[in-house]
Amino acid sequence: MTAHLINGKAISTELRQNIKDEISQLKKEHPDFQPKIVIVQVGERPDSSTYVRMKLKSCKEVGIDGTLLKFDAAVTQKELIDRLSELNDDSSVHGILVQLPLPSHIDEELITNAVKHTKDVDGFSELNMAAIFKRSAVPLQIPCTPKGILYMLDHEKVQISGKNVVVCGRSDIVGGPISKLLEKRGGTVTIVHSKTTPEQKHFYCSNADIIVSAVGKVNFLEPQDIKEGAVIIDVGTNYIPDSTKKSGHRLVGDVDFDGCKEKAAMITPVPGGVGPMTVVMVLHNLIEAAKREYGY
Amino acid sequence: MTAHLINGKAISTELRQNIKDEISQLKKEHPDFQPKIVIVQVGERPDSSTYVRMKLKSCKEVGIDGTLLKFDAAVTQKELIDRLSELNDDSSVHGILVQLPLPSHIDEELITNAVKHTKDVDGFSELNMAAIFKRSAVPLQIPCTPKGILYMLDHEKVQISGKNVVVCGRSDIVGGPISKLLEKRGGTVTIVHSKTTPEQKHFYCSNADIIVSAVGKVNFLEPQDIKEGAVIIDVGTNYIPDSTKKSGHRLVGDVDFDGCKEKAAMITPVPGGVGPMTVVMVLHNLIEAAKREYGY
Repeated sequence: MTAHLINGKAISTELRQNIKDEISQLKKEHPDFQPKIVIVQVGERPDSSTYVRMKLKSCKEVGIDGTLLKFDAAVTQKELIDRLSELNDDSSVHGILVQLPLPSHIDEELITNAVKHTKDVDGFSELNMAAIFKRSAVPLQIPCTPKGILYMLDHEKVQISGKNVVVCGRSDIVGGPISKLLEKRGGTVTIVHSKTTPEQKHFYCSNADIIVSAVGKVNFLEPQDIKEGAVIIDVGTNYIPDSTKKSGHRLVGDVDFDGCKEKAAMITPVPGGVGPMTVVMVLHNLIEAAKREYGY
Repeated sequence: MTAHLINGKAISTELRQNIKDEISQLKKEHPDFQPKIVIVQVGERPDSSTYVRMKLKSCKEVGIDGTLLKFDAAVTQKELIDRLSELNDDSSVHGILVQLPLPSHIDEELITNAVKHTKDVDGFSELNMAAIFKRSAVPLQIPCTPKGILYMLDHEKVQISGKNVVVCGRSDIVGGPISKLLEKRGGTVTIVHSKTTPEQKHFYCSNADIIVSAVGKVNFLEPQDIKEGAVIIDVGTNYIPDSTKKSGHRLVGDVDFDGCKEKAAMITPVPGGVGPMTVVMVLHNLIEAAKREYGY
């Protein structure tokens, strides 16, 4: 058996087109409709600049007004919070995205929570986290990677309710929220993490119908760890040396892809799986926030 | 093998005495020290009145100034929120406890979140929930039942890190927070809930080193579901008919106690297990909040 590839690149491209069409339609119906995101960047980290540029380009492509607000690396926390507070009050701004990481003199937690939770398109604010965690609550925004994973699973019509689910990794950005969201969908979820022993990992993973791996370790999941017919979502982004590449390295996930694809029913490749979904979900969160603001 | 009984009554009595001693010592050192809690009750539900009376009595016994603020069942949401806002600003008040349930015209979620999170001795506010959920965050207050469970496990020197843990039930008050808290302590945690199949339940429970059951079903856990030597924490409070009792019923937990105590290493009885721990943790949260306010 060879697993069906969950093609995040194709799914995200289709979703991006849907978002573009929806924005274009909304602009036709409501000439004043102009979804707008402000991306806040502090300092000049080259990787951050690349991400910011990619996000702004994505916004432009679908008809979202993307503005970059750049601060010197020496900006004070107070200046940053005051500016965020203005953006929170500016009704023409529907989403605010603070590019992380921030310089070490700035408290990321504090800044993340300074973004009004209705405009928090990253979904990292405490109020959004609490809403994911609480059983009855419906979060306004779901962090982009978990949201992208759910979208892919739905796209591939993977049943979650009644299934054994393992989430490897317990970060606030991926493992924490996706485990809760899959539980809310009816999965019986186990979180495997750094304190889980190899025996425990094997016990849970080899019984799992769905595994989401977000630990950042090459070959963390090998064929002997997974069940025949499992659905494998690989969130890992690890660079390994590869002399055939100009850069000298290539991107791989957490999963021994070649081995596991012979045993799994479905698997996401890296690259081209979860990554492109994460990017498009920023747009999806933004357009939802804009529609809420306009009352559509 | 007969399980060691985890005696919540004795542990809570000892902790209550410690709290009393600590308050008495603090009052000696700081003559102006006066920990104070305000309990808000809306309407006249007899069960609520009983709980409120019990809580006030407990406060008095240890030297906490407990005040009851009673509202007519017809009070408006706005009146309630305005009053809570005054209490939030009153530095002589260290804890505010809104007795639930509230009348149906009042939004419990809204009222719960109207209590300033530093004074939220129930630990139900969104900011406290988010802090439990987030990996890096330290919650100011832990909801009383999960806090009581952790205290009992520590008291009995139960190792959590590296263990297989199952939490049955996923409420915001017990299952949700305790699963996250046990995971933060290094347990590999699976949440069993209403969408978990009987086969799944058996698979996870029979492999668990620690089981916390909070589902509210008589005999939810039977001996065949548990592993020899497991630690069983029974949070269930179920009333079953019992003609030998004057009331005609008696309190039992979720666990087939007589059966499971022959197989488990440790087990909590019902009554006299988790229940008394929950009550004393209100006092514990309050005294911690008061010490924070005074800066001790």
